[in-house]
Amino acid sequence: VAAAYHALAARAARMSRTNLITLLTDFGLQDPYVGVMKAVLLRHCPSARIVDLSHAVPPYDTCAAAFWIERVFGWFPEETVHIVVVDPGVGSPRMSIAIRAHGQYFVGPDNGVLSGVFACDAAAEARRIEPNALGLPPPSRTFHGRDAFAPIGAQLAAGSLPFESVGAIVPSLSGPVLPVAVESASGVIGQVVTVDRFGNAITNLELPSAGGRYEVRVLGRSLRIVETYADVAVGEACALLGAFGTLELAVREGYAATAIGVVPGTPVELRGMA
Amino acid sequence: VAAAYHALAARAARMSRTNLITLLTDFGLQDPYVGVMKAVLLRHCPSARIVDLSHAVPPYDTCAAAFWIERVFGWFPEETVHIVVVDPGVGSPRMSIAIRAHGQYFVGPDNGVLSGVFACDAAAEARRIEPNALGLPPPSRTFHGRDAFAPIGAQLAAGSLPFESVGAIVPSLSGPVLPVAVESASGVIGQVVTVDRFGNAITNLELPSAGGRYEVRVLGRSLRIVETYADVAVGEACALLGAFGTLELAVREGYAATAIGVVPGTPVELRGMA
Amino acid sequence: VAAAYHALAARAARMSRTNLITLLTDFGLQDPYVGVMKAVLLRHCPSARIVDLSHAVPPYDTCAAAFWIERVFGWFPEETVHIVVVDPGVGSPRMSIAIRAHGQYFVGPDNGVLSGVFACDAAAEARRIEPNALGLPPPSRTFHGRDAFAPIGAQLAAGSLPFESVGAIVPSLSGPVLPVAVESASGVIGQVVTVDRFGNAITNLELPSAGGRYEVRVLGRSLRIVETYADVAVGEACALLGAFGTLELAVREGYAATAIGVVPGTPVELRGMA
Repeated sequence: VAAAYHALAARAARMSRTNLITLLTDFGLQDPYVGVMKAVLLRHCPSARIVDLSHAVPPYDTCAAAFWIERVFGWFPEETVHIVVVDPGVGSPRMSIAIRAHGQYFVGPDNGVLSGVFACDAAAEARRIEPNALGLPPPSRTFHGRDAFAPIGAQLAAGSLPFESVGAIVPSLSGPVLPVAVESASGVIGQVVTVDRFGNAITNLELPSAGGRYEVRVLGRSLRIVETYADVAVGEACALLGAFGTLELAVREGYAATAIGVVPGTPVELRGMA
Repeated sequence: VAAAYHALAARAARMSRTNLITLLTDFGLQDPYVGVMKAVLLRHCPSARIVDLSHAVPPYDTCAAAFWIERVFGWFPEETVHIVVVDPGVGSPRMSIAIRAHGQYFVGPDNGVLSGVFACDAAAEARRIEPNALGLPPPSRTFHGRDAFAPIGAQLAAGSLPFESVGAIVPSLSGPVLPVAVESASGVIGQVVTVDRFGNAITNLELPSAGGRYEVRVLGRSLRIVETYADVAVGEACALLGAFGTLELAVREGYAATAIGVVPGTPVELRGMA
Repeated sequence: VAAAYHALAARAARMSRTNLITLLTDFGLQDPYVGVMKAVLLRHCPSARIVDLSHAVPPYDTCAAAFWIERVFGWFPEETVHIVVVDPGVGSPRMSIAIRAHGQYFVGPDNGVLSGVFACDAAAEARRIEPNALGLPPPSRTFHGRDAFAPIGAQLAAGSLPFESVGAIVPSLSGPVLPVAVESASGVIGQVVTVDRFGNAITNLELPSAGGRYEVRVLGRSLRIVETYADVAVGEACALLGAFGTLELAVREGYAATAIGVVPGTPVELRGMA
């Protein structure tokens, strides 16, 4: 009984790992690509708990994916494995990488989508994924999500592959794809990064922690910064601090991106007021 | 060994709770809003099993959300926690509430979306959610799903927060948002509540349990009531009792809402036939 | 303690079953149809791990569903239960069936969608699902996914219903709905089966294992066969072996179906080159 008990306890201990894996892709939910990735994840980590962050990143939009993973990972517990697959260069010689940063893991292509997560942790470490060296079959040329990122991510989540064994250390990554807001003569100029389901235009502009009064300038018009949608009339445009820490352009109960006329990339300026 | 065994048994007992949490929102699946809610759910209830009812409620359509939660909760086991977030007034002073009714829990804004569920159980009890009083950080002004409903719902599912401790009892809720069918001179007048993925126009009309022959009148035309799609020709319009107990307007292998010309709110009459 | 230990061990053994259930439907994610199926699955198999293959099969498109289930099941472990519901004939007298094939289970309507899976395993066995005989309430006329396929599939996954007890053996099924590529004077003629989220037009053409040089002919034009998207210029059309073993028509970083002008059913020919 004791041996059986210990086996059972070991099993319980393994199950008490977080085993949390998130997926952020541009695969859509129309085809079974994501479902097949989950088959692979569950094969390599049967106790995985899988959270879909989004599969509706606009096709090939590495910038939106970079924004979301940077803004979202902090909500997950230590040891969570984030698999990010927005990968216009699949099949080209770009590297596949795994990163340990912020106490979590990030797996995806080295095309800039994970470079921001890497850059903002001085202790971050990146390693090159080489599927053959890890005993995996050669990946298909078009679906590294299934053939490289899923098995490695799942083994990291299961604890069956130590991070140190993933592959050689990569000292520096591709340049980041997410633009950074820059200071201007009159304030800070950023841009619309993505438009959400409600039509809110989410920017890369943060509010200075020092406080002070500000306005937002976009396409020649001025928007006041409010605390919540309910502070403006139905249909009125405004800017407000979104739930992930950056300014959003919004229209109460309306679709702001169309109403204001912005798309990803449209410049937005934050200006101090007298 | 005995102490370790008892710890293991206690763990197994905790895991045998239902821990079932459903989500019904208008957040869409485009952005990672739902994924972040799940991060919070799993942090407060690591063994949660999460079922997505829908995240594609039309933006701000509290009526469709009220219809679905009322029609769907009965399929779930006791102690299931349903989190419903269709919340045009987020950030306004509307209350956040948790309801115990029908042996299950319901968490969301007090904007009418949960009032029907509350009203149809005489023993139902509603309590006001006050995040600060429960030790949560102050919620953001735009994302109560993540900052208030998810942590409270998860703690109810985990059993770590007794319902009695959620907050003060709320004796009455906002008026329900789902219209009720009313008797007319010639029958019962209801309306289209929502249009499903197949184009079926789902109404709030039930068939009298007494039996009898009926027809449906809509936009000046008469539709016969059949038992199943296969009872009419391909492309023919009809009405039939849907899988959730109300009449639906359907076109066999067609998109009925467009073919018949109805939208949510269009009046539909159920008439007895001689 | 020993008895309690054995109960615990038995519970752990049950939990170590795969309990993996996949869903492939045309229900969409707009309405809570899938969520209610999951309520039923979890009621009959509380430890089920559910993987959504897709709920966005085009409405009534049994051909696309047949293609995907045939190409995807091999990625799942033994004993996985696949529930496939694309069912224009729901409510008609078509049979409901459960199939044991390839070491896995398949549950759905007998409308051809599962006939390919059945045909390619000589040891496959199909049985007729008769809900009444299995103690289930009479199914609704419009939602057999919830009322017949989910409870039977979940009981197969849980091991509480032996396959032999599902119902009478069905010796032959409806004809398959997925067309097979056929030899022509100049090569092999197949067709576009479905268009994926990226616009890739996926065909039912495989590449001969013998090797050799080939081209693809479609709508009067010739496409060269490359190894990966990166082998052509951005915007250029090509054909390549997709991740599920058939040829796809693709445009690098473009939407091939529109660019080339194909839809499901468009003939595509594979021709040997001198």
